[in-house]
This record gives sequence, structure tokens and C-alpha cells, in this order.
Amino acid sequence: MSKSDNFIIYGRNPVEEALKNRPQEVNKIYIKNNLKPSAYFDINKLAEDYEVPLVKVPGSKIFNMVGKMNDQGILAQISATKYTDFYEWVETLVLSQNPAVLLLNGIEDPHNFGAILRSAAASGMEAVIIPMQNQAPVNATVYKTSAGTAGKIPIIRVHDLNQAFKDLKMTGFSIAALDGSAQKTVWEADLEKPTAFLIGSEGEGIQSDVLKRCDSILKIPMHNDVESLNASVSAALISYEWLRRKQG
Amino acid sequence: MSKSDNFIIYGRNPVEEALKNRPQEVNKIYIKNNLKPSAYFDINKLAEDYEVPLVKVPGSKIFNMVGKMNDQGILAQISATKYTDFYEWVETLVLSQNPAVLLLNGIEDPHNFGAILRSAAASGMEAVIIPMQNQAPVNATVYKTSAGTAGKIPIIRVHDLNQAFKDLKMTGFSIAALDGSAQKTVWEADLEKPTAFLIGSEGEGIQSDVLKRCDSILKIPMHNDVESLNASVSAALISYEWLRRKQG
Repeated sequence: MSKSDNFIIYGRNPVEEALKNRPQEVNKIYIKNNLKPSAYFDINKLAEDYEVPLVKVPGSKIFNMVGKMNDQGILAQISATKYTDFYEWVETLVLSQNPAVLLLNGIEDPHNFGAILRSAAASGMEAVIIPMQNQAPVNATVYKTSAGTAGKIPIIRVHDLNQAFKDLKMTGFSIAALDGSAQKTVWEADLEKPTAFLIGSEGEGIQSDVLKRCDSILKIPMHNDVESLNASVSAALISYEWLRRKQG
Repeated sequence: MSKSDNFIIYGRNPVEEALKNRPQEVNKIYIKNNLKPSAYFDINKLAEDYEVPLVKVPGSKIFNMVGKMNDQGILAQISATKYTDFYEWVETLVLSQNPAVLLLNGIEDPHNFGAILRSAAASGMEAVIIPMQNQAPVNATVYKTSAGTAGKIPIIRVHDLNQAFKDLKMTGFSIAALDGSAQKTVWEADLEKPTAFLIGSEGEGIQSDVLKRCDSILKIPMHNDVESLNASVSAALISYEWLRRKQG
């Protein structure tokens, strides 16, 4: 992610829609201080539900923020994330050094996503690639859970897994899925090539038709009949196994 | 943890106090179905706040649960955890096989604690040892986040770290702290002996006077100026490094 900007939206309906549809991207609500409570009753309720701060400000402050607009005395500050472009990122790679990336398939929990970004950055992954669908965007919660590391590693958003597979393979990456069905453990994996590690969602894992299209499947050994690990733990284990081989 | 029992408490004040002080240990509230709403207004509110199910039941069901008691028509089912006794556990160990345990120092977030239990069980740790203070107990959230694995690994609760150090060292364990100040990485560690890995809290890490009393200090290598990892990720990385050496 190159940088994170904020922007202002205004008017009762837009603010209410933002709170309903992407509450974690709403940083703050501004209400004109002489507005009747009934005029923002629903917004107040939603802000409380989603723990979005709501502040009352004089009309002059509203005017400073959006100028002379039909704002109805209701504004919201929205966090915007700029993702890295895949092709610009490819230009920065040195493929002969066998770089690695994480490719996420449906990590909807922002805490898991944040923790994944944190260990991906710490282990020296070159990027984290996410699809548009069934995947948490980078929002305030993700940023916080990542302990700020979300700004330290390129995050590339692609349309879907198909596009990611096509782009990565064309660039020279091998795709290794992490899945309990594998024969080979992460310790036995051949990592001497540019590799994208595909991490499945907590609930669904990786669909079988997706698994078929991967170049290899790797598993993390499990004792005590444990069936799976937290997605952020799995991602960290494969990222650090890659780093251990590289450094050790 | 050998097993998990539930028990019933009764009466308005005890139930209200349980909801206030240890809401995550309250499994369910039972209210006699002809009780006036005003008689359990606060309890209803607390149950909603903490998402504890509240069910209305006939007086005969209340009687079956607690007999003839001054229950005021208000009952709560509380989850109780039985921890494993250190000395009984020691009897089951084969020290010549170089067993390993996790020793937690102040993991207060139940989600982190649950994730730690999950990867400790999966990696074949012999136990997880926790102090009484500044440490989440095993409760419903921990159980859920552990994906049920909390029942698959002994959890030993000791009075404090001092006692844990004394008991472990006397048994023949070496104590290795995970801390960014270390010279040696986890990959360079000597793990050919019974080892207790000390995992610090997210916020505080491990106090310097505690570090001094450890037999070794190990670090997880970090890139991109990342300062630390999530505690559950650190715990999983050292647990799996131990398992890799053992199996590999």
C-alpha cells in the first residue's frame, strides 16, 4: 500500500449508507451542533453499534470541511486505502532471488488479516495479494491489528483468484496452496523458486477446483487430532519456514 | 485440562455479580417464566450486553435444577475449568524424549490465549502453563477460539512465574524466553533438552528481571523494522520450530 488517504462524504443518506455498508472505513462522524436529535437518530444508533466516534461541531467547521454544500449538517470522514498495482510491483522484483508472496483466499476477519500483514512484513514477504470478493479490505481495524505494518508491505488487490493465478504464473511464480489434504509438509517443500503461498479462509479452506490449479499443496503437520490452525498462524508458519530456508 | 464442568448459581445478586465480574464464564441465564420484568431488568440488560442467552423456564424446571432454594426465580449456569496438577502431570512425562511446554506470562486476550492453545496442541507441546495473575483463565471465549483444542492439551495453572520457574527447573526443564533482545534466533537454539518456552504479553513482553532468570533468550528474526509479532504467532513459531527439529 503506497499510502492511506481520508476523504469526507456528506448528507444524511450517504453517511447512513457508509455506516451500514462499510462501517469500519468510517473514521468519524461530524454533526452540526444545532441539529435536532431526530435528524440523525439512525446515524447515532449505527455509530454507537459500530463504535464510530460522533462529534458535534459548529456550522463554520462544517463549512470549512465541505464548503457550501447540501450537507444537512451531517458529515463522515472515510478512510481510503491505496493498493499497489501488480504490474508496477513486478517491475521492482528480482526474480532470481526467489521472492515469495502470500495470496489470500477469503480472509474476512480483519483481525486475522491484520495479523497476516504483520508476520508477512516481519518475515520479508514481497507482497500480500488479495481478491476483491470475500476478503476484508484494508481498514482501520486491519491497520491497528497489523500494528502499523500494513504500511510496510505492498498490498495488491486483484479482481479474483483467477486473475491472481494468471498474473503470478505469467510473472514466473509457482503457486503453493496450504491445505491439510497435502502429502508434503511445509518442511519438505521445494522453495528454491519464486513462490506464492495460497492461504485459505478459516471456515472454507481452499475449494477443490482451486487446489487442482495450484503447482503444489503443502500441509502443516498436526498432532492431537487438531484439524486446522488459525489462518494467521498458518500464514506465519509458512512465511517463516520460507525465511528460515533463505537465511539458514 | 482434564475436563470442564458446569455448575449452577442462584439468586438475583449472585447472578448479577457473575455477569458483571466474569461474564464469559456465564453460559446461560434461567428466569422463572412468571417473574416480573422489573425483577430482572438489570440482569436482562447485562445478559444482552455480554450476549449471554437468557431463557424463561417454568418453576418446576427451576426446582429440578436447585431444589427448594431462595433462588428468586433467577439462575445462571457457570462454566468451570479443571486445570491439570503440575505434579500429576510430571508423572506422565518421559524426560528423555525432550518434551516441551509453553509458559505464558500475561496473555490477557482470550482470543490470543485460545489461538496459543490451538497451535500448542497441534504442534505436540506437552502442556501450557499459566500463572494466576494477568492471565486470561480458560473460559468460553478461549474454548471457542481454541477450536475445541483447549480440551486436548493439559493446562496447568500455577500461582505465579516464580513457582513455575522453580517447579520446571526442579523437574529438569530449561527455560527459554522469546524476546527481541536475544542474540540467538529460534533457528539457532539448542532444543535437545526438556524446554519451557516463555511467551511474553503483547504489550509488556517479558520484564528484564524475569529475562535474567531464564536459561536462554531466543528471538524471531524480523524484517521491515517490524518490532514484534502477535503473541499467538510467536508461540506458534517456536512450537513448530521445536516440532520441526524433533521430526526432521
